[in-house]
Amino acid sequence: MHPQGLIFRQLFEKQSCTYSYLLADDTTKEALIIDPVLETTERDLRVIQQLGLRLLYAVNTHVHADHVTGSGCLKTAIPECRSVLSEASGGQADIHVKEGQALKFGRFALSVRSTPGHTDGCVTLVLNDLSLAFTGDTLLIRGCGRTDFQQGSSETLYQSVHRKIFTLPDHCLLYPAHDYTGQTVSSVGEERKFNPRLTKTLSEFVEIMNNLALPYPKQIGEQERPADQL
Amino acid sequence: MHPQGLIFRQLFEKQSCTYSYLLADDTTKEALIIDPVLETTERDLRVIQQLGLRLLYAVNTHVHADHVTGSGCLKTAIPECRSVLSEASGGQADIHVKEGQALKFGRFALSVRSTPGHTDGCVTLVLNDLSLAFTGDTLLIRGCGRTDFQQGSSETLYQSVHRKIFTLPDHCLLYPAHDYTGQTVSSVGEERKFNPRLTKTLSEFVEIMNNLALPYPKQIGEQERPADQL
Repeated sequence: MHPQGLIFRQLFEKQSCTYSYLLADDTTKEALIIDPVLETTERDLRVIQQLGLRLLYAVNTHVHADHVTGSGCLKTAIPECRSVLSEASGGQADIHVKEGQALKFGRFALSVRSTPGHTDGCVTLVLNDLSLAFTGDTLLIRGCGRTDFQQGSSETLYQSVHRKIFTLPDHCLLYPAHDYTGQTVSSVGEERKFNPRLTKTLSEFVEIMNNLALPYPKQIGEQERPADQL
Repeated sequence: MHPQGLIFRQLFEKQSCTYSYLLADDTTKEALIIDPVLETTERDLRVIQQLGLRLLYAVNTHVHADHVTGSGCLKTAIPECRSVLSEASGGQADIHVKEGQALKFGRFALSVRSTPGHTDGCVTLVLNDLSLAFTGDTLLIRGCGRTDFQQGSSETLYQSVHRKIFTLPDHCLLYPAHDYTGQTVSSVGEERKFNPRLTKTLSEFVEIMNNLALPYPKQIGEQERPADQL
């Protein structure tokens, strides 16, 4: 369940099926956006402005191969806003974060969990009360990000999910960076029970990931469909 | 803010840009679905089954012209489930409801507000604590349903929104049946301030609606974009 006082907006970009998330404290109006998309910058700026928010951070869960981040444009429009990426990503940003660091906005904070596997620099962002987590491309609803590209490693992704995400409380809501089936949210309890890939043993998981036979990049996001959709 | 104990799933169908909503009591597991879409029945049934829900009602906010309801298929799969439509809709259903009636599921109930204008039979469904409302095609995020088809009337829609939706508390979250811009939710306070059509006077609103020059049906939903997207 979302905590009281949290403004929460899930925003969708149709071409790459990307979800961006705008979070804010409803009292201080301090805000951050997760995984903004270039093409929807105008929409996102309008929502930020109409809600009267003060955008502190544009955070990317990793360096995306399937869309261009909106961080740059948001920073141009809102000079106070700083871009955030993980140190391990190797990408350019105003702030580089690592495991255990927190991004504060008003009464809330997102803490950084390093969850490599899809890329080396992937992070999962967890709200301080453990009610919500943003899993980027590490864990999708009933699926996960591909691991055959950009330093991908199935073993590493499996360990990341089991050690850093499945150890969160069952009721913790999970918000991924993509969904191709029209679903908007899952929970730790559900994915622990029903994720068709991550409920397997490590060796079975590696086998599944080795046999996805995904076409090379083009629009990488499109290749991250859950196993049961392939 | 969503009340404690409410399971809430917003589900999207890409072709018609329709949102369906699955609501349930997390203790009794009694559930209902609002505006299900035929093409996504399999996905919806899987979510219902995996969450262990007991689907009591498949409710349509109105008779849709842009997609086929999934109610029939859901009823076939879940014989206990009953379809619901407003009395004024003239459509077939197991249960016909009218103003002030409530659909109970566990500790929760949705009460029916008659909000004609897009069609005669349109209803808005309001959660008993007034925290959430489902506006169908009556009020969209920064827009509204078209009024030039299926007994549409701009005057009637305007009165419906002002009397039955804008009188809800500002913090009440609004969930529409469609969005074409990737937005998922709004609130009464926001729409009262920023809806480019409904913040106008009645006569200005009627003028706007008379001049939309929308192409005839085909895929009606596509014609319901907010004014600033046209």
